[in-house]
Amino acid sequence: MPELQAVLSHADQALDDSLERLFELIRIPSISTDPAYADDCDRAAHWLCDMLGDLGFAASVRPTGGRAMVVGHDDQAARPHVLFYGHYDVQPVDPPDLWTSPAFEPSVVELEPGRKVITGRGAADDKGQLMTFLEACRAFKSVHGALPCRVSVLLEGEEESGSHSLKPFLQAHRDELKADLALVCDTCMWDRTTPAISGGLRGLVGEEIVITAADRDLHSGYFGGAAANPIHILAKVLADLHDETGRVMIPGFYEGVEETPSNIKASWQALGQSDADFLGEVGLSVPAGEKGRSVLELTWARPTAEVNGIKGGYTGTGFKTVIAAQASAKVSFRLVGHQDPARIRAAFRDFVKARIPADCSVTFHEHGASGAIQLPYDSPVLTTARRALCDEWEKPAVIIGMGGSIPIVGDFQSMLGMQSLLIGFGLSDDRIHSPNEKYDLTSFHKGIRSWIRVLDALADSPAASPG
Amino acid sequence: MPELQAVLSHADQALDDSLERLFELIRIPSISTDPAYADDCDRAAHWLCDMLGDLGFAASVRPTGGRAMVVGHDDQAARPHVLFYGHYDVQPVDPPDLWTSPAFEPSVVELEPGRKVITGRGAADDKGQLMTFLEACRAFKSVHGALPCRVSVLLEGEEESGSHSLKPFLQAHRDELKADLALVCDTCMWDRTTPAISGGLRGLVGEEIVITAADRDLHSGYFGGAAANPIHILAKVLADLHDETGRVMIPGFYEGVEETPSNIKASWQALGQSDADFLGEVGLSVPAGEKGRSVLELTWARPTAEVNGIKGGYTGTGFKTVIAAQASAKVSFRLVGHQDPARIRAAFRDFVKARIPADCSVTFHEHGASGAIQLPYDSPVLTTARRALCDEWEKPAVIIGMGGSIPIVGDFQSMLGMQSLLIGFGLSDDRIHSPNEKYDLTSFHKGIRSWIRVLDALADSPAASPG
Repeated sequence: MPELQAVLSHADQALDDSLERLFELIRIPSISTDPAYADDCDRAAHWLCDMLGDLGFAASVRPTGGRAMVVGHDDQAARPHVLFYGHYDVQPVDPPDLWTSPAFEPSVVELEPGRKVITGRGAADDKGQLMTFLEACRAFKSVHGALPCRVSVLLEGEEESGSHSLKPFLQAHRDELKADLALVCDTCMWDRTTPAISGGLRGLVGEEIVITAADRDLHSGYFGGAAANPIHILAKVLADLHDETGRVMIPGFYEGVEETPSNIKASWQALGQSDADFLGEVGLSVPAGEKGRSVLELTWARPTAEVNGIKGGYTGTGFKTVIAAQASAKVSFRLVGHQDPARIRAAFRDFVKARIPADCSVTFHEHGASGAIQLPYDSPVLTTARRALCDEWEKPAVIIGMGGSIPIVGDFQSMLGMQSLLIGFGLSDDRIHSPNEKYDLTSFHKGIRSWIRVLDALADSPAASPG
Repeated sequence: MPELQAVLSHADQALDDSLERLFELIRIPSISTDPAYADDCDRAAHWLCDMLGDLGFAASVRPTGGRAMVVGHDDQAARPHVLFYGHYDVQPVDPPDLWTSPAFEPSVVELEPGRKVITGRGAADDKGQLMTFLEACRAFKSVHGALPCRVSVLLEGEEESGSHSLKPFLQAHRDELKADLALVCDTCMWDRTTPAISGGLRGLVGEEIVITAADRDLHSGYFGGAAANPIHILAKVLADLHDETGRVMIPGFYEGVEETPSNIKASWQALGQSDADFLGEVGLSVPAGEKGRSVLELTWARPTAEVNGIKGGYTGTGFKTVIAAQASAKVSFRLVGHQDPARIRAAFRDFVKARIPADCSVTFHEHGASGAIQLPYDSPVLTTARRALCDEWEKPAVIIGMGGSIPIVGDFQSMLGMQSLLIGFGLSDDRIHSPNEKYDLTSFHKGIRSWIRVLDALADSPAASPG
């Protein structure tokens, strides 16, 4: 413990230097989606590679078909072996005139009395977050000359533009990248004082359906009442998706869905967020999904069927009395537990086909599929990491779900057989992807300290495998 | 009768001259929707005005805020007084390269052995049709120096572009234009050998609904399963519009709907058109509306609720996991009998509102309303006109319904208290509004002869009022 305190103290004393390094990284406009910034992405990759080298990692910049990967290894410690993942690319800054200070000129400003924030594109997503880990490593190295675990680092440059090179890279470097556990720092705390570990990520199945009736658009005067209207058929299909209680009616949909343990539900309840709070932020008040479940449970631990887009007939200004030849919808399913994406897709297609009249037809277009990720709530690493975070924040870390998907986590699981521990220090008001992105100075400082504690705890833990 | 035969014979002998006059009119590219052709519209109006003057009508071109009206009166005969309506404007020709001969260079070509057609934009819609009436008048004048009825003529120049000037014009000239009966020549025969009178026109109520849920678009991962999805709500509303038998479920919707007399249904059945024939033309086979009714009854004599357009969420290429803030649909109702447009609209709005969750909202946008038009099947003018057409075509004229609306007919009824007799000689393959529009030479020739017989019969008829 005294050894740990020394590392933490070092991190405190070195905070200004840590901050200056983060500023250097933020100053590089590594926007991955815009080819005009390709050189800047390359510069960011080399900057990080050099920094890893300074820290004693065997590091290199690895070219891909797109933006480069940065990979580093520090093999001094034997075990456990963790792979840290972050991304150095950032979102575009548009619209630039909405920024109150230039996006790539970071600074520390006082947002409100006693609350300082780091400003700039990437301050939170993901440069600030990834630097919490690297600065934690630096503190260990400075004090002890070594890390407590065997650490590999993988820093991607295409996270904000589709991660096209990631899967092939993982595939090609399976042996090099496979570790006992992945650490991912790209998520949020529950609130400014409550640390969080994302224990579950919902999966996603995307599907587009196109219903065709007549072989051309029809005049609704001549044909109305006699000809099949594909919008009516589509509306019926979509209306049938849920029953009155919000339950999804596709046969077999809930296979593989387990109830969340009651102690976890209780911990969510203890967060004190009412449904009205959650929905009130976006102008709503009535939970719309399965009845009798809180919004946190609905978004973290229950599967959904949502229509994301619908189109058919005349949608311009004014009116056109047309019966469309086609109508289409984009539908997505959020998956939890062991729901099988392929079976969900097949069951949905059967469900739709059963509702198509004999003289009409339907075509389906696949838009991705990934299963849910769920660390067992009683997994040893979860327990270890929770305790470390609790030590730092003096408050229990909550195990939250995530409604959205983080593809890298699925890829680590499916391609490398490796589970991920998702710990991040972002806040919901960080305005990532928007003008005036910021990262709380506390997130950065205590984020560094948190990783010091987590690495230390994992090193001492009897089991670093996820459980 | 010998007098009538003389007029008919004159029409036969003068056919080439009649055709040359129609060609002259077609050569004027009077496209009303395109301001570039405003002068041509003006030219067409004056050409017609001059022709009416030559025929002895007191005729004038009447400027409006848009394209001019042409009005003419021949008051030699005392009664009955008929008002003939047609329109001299035409649709654009796009795409011009699909025309096999130039749109404004009319000619007579042999479509198949023994079947000659007049080609050109407006050949059928409505220049060819309106000229059948004017050439009938010319034949009477040539032989007898007088028309058998008091005849007024109203020729519009904005029918293809919204008829914006029509209502104000009718309002301002009520007394001048009010006659015993309107004659409208803008409809079709049943087939090439079977004349038809359109006895009924369905009314139309157009309504746009916009459902709003959250105050912004939401990420379906973070909010899916908890936040109201306006597309789901809209789908449920639209799915609820019809029951399993195709009946419209809006309370009170069928008030004012009467069953079609069985003898009329039998005459429709006798036309020998199967549901499969009707629907087969557009790639369908199963009647989609109320069960147990033929497609002719469904489209001519039954009311409908049809969704003409729907839009919500992401509809571009690919996929976006969004829960939309809004979803909207354009819905129209075809009305028959005495269904009240205002009551239908109100009932629909109540129906929708009852399905909107407490934290969501709906707005409605009105897109026109017109009641159905129905000449009583036993009306004297219908009987008179039927007999005249039967004499010409040697086959009973069928009294058909029309699924679509012809606004002028509603305006004549509501603003001038005048009913309309809709007789036209178009055919379903005339390709109006499309490239290579044509009008059968038989339609033109026997159309002229038909109007001669109808005018003659109306003059002799004890009652020229519609019944």
